[in-house]
Amino acid sequence: MVEATQPRRLTPKGRATRERILEAAIALIARQGVAGTSIEDVRAAADVSGSQLYHYFDSKQALIRAVITRQAESFLDSGRPRISALDSFDALRAWADAAIDQQRQTGCRGCSLGSLAGELAVSDEETRGDLATGFLQWKDLILNGLRAMRDRGDLRTDADLEQLAFALLSALQGGVLLAQTVLDVEPLEAAMNVTLAHLETFLTGVR
Amino acid sequence: MVEATQPRRLTPKGRATRERILEAAIALIARQGVAGTSIEDVRAAADVSGSQLYHYFDSKQALIRAVITRQAESFLDSGRPRISALDSFDALRAWADAAIDQQRQTGCRGCSLGSLAGELAVSDEETRGDLATGFLQWKDLILNGLRAMRDRGDLRTDADLEQLAFALLSALQGGVLLAQTVLDVEPLEAAMNVTLAHLETFLTGVR
Repeated sequence: MVEATQPRRLTPKGRATRERILEAAIALIARQGVAGTSIEDVRAAADVSGSQLYHYFDSKQALIRAVITRQAESFLDSGRPRISALDSFDALRAWADAAIDQQRQTGCRGCSLGSLAGELAVSDEETRGDLATGFLQWKDLILNGLRAMRDRGDLRTDADLEQLAFALLSALQGGVLLAQTVLDVEPLEAAMNVTLAHLETFLTGVR
Repeated sequence: MVEATQPRRLTPKGRATRERILEAAIALIARQGVAGTSIEDVRAAADVSGSQLYHYFDSKQALIRAVITRQAESFLDSGRPRISALDSFDALRAWADAAIDQQRQTGCRGCSLGSLAGELAVSDEETRGDLATGFLQWKDLILNGLRAMRDRGDLRTDADLEQLAFALLSALQGGVLLAQTVLDVEPLEAAMNVTLAHLETFLTGVR
């Protein structure tokens, strides 16, 4: 994933061009899926020449990997102050609500790491590895928040933090997948509410 | 979905041929994904002529819809006696364990309605509709089981059954998606354990 997260040093203009290509790819993939998006579609939408595009992304595969990395990072640096660290019940609830709102605002469509995973993981080993890295980073971010809660005395010491972290991420991914398929946010709300209710039973109440 | 679930009346030989084509398609899609599977691949794997294949499935789309219907049905008629009705905590636990075992046995690969949904729902409105129908049937099967438990007095009357049913299905789909991406069954186990633990808090204990 290194080449995707740390592109070689670019001029400000180069960074802007790379960014324009990446954003065009993200928007097209959200609408059409990966299989339905060609390099030529991305080139036309970003309004760049073929040689410009290949300067930054030398294959469709490289472009898709950059999209995956961006999707994982956009969660990690979402910029919402309450979500920068998932280290309180309120922060986890706000994270869940932000995901639910996002689905509601996009009419339960839109590009998530999860829908990319569904489309790509089956058939492409390298991409599966990138997706796995993204998911495990995400899980660790949740896990670190839960550990901070436990160390602070907010969570009982018998809580299985690894299990809770994977359950929260699975609830999010499964809920988004179902919401996008049935075009209704209800499954996502149900999954997050139930998983957070279980987490809540481990709160010590001394927050 | 009618044409896919109720194909026109076929002779026993016709049914066997249609079945052979469908099973070849399911196996290929599990290995290669939908985008990576051509009609020609299916024809060769099923060892039928092109005209035979088109007699039963007049397009790749028709074939994919039949695969989706079969995936949803295979859950509903899985033939495992304890899973034919999800109307007790033990049956729900057995259902979760069967899903976990299946992922473990396939090395966290394999074709699920969920991975089909991830690959297809974004880009194809008709297929999305079929998948939504499949998921909602599945949710209703869980919901009917939970209602039977409540009516029998096994579940407290304040349990939100619709929420529990969607949460169980989301946990399964998200857990399978993560398991298939990170190649480890742990996220699926975590998701099912947490959701069932929440359900358990609504048991009346008079089972």
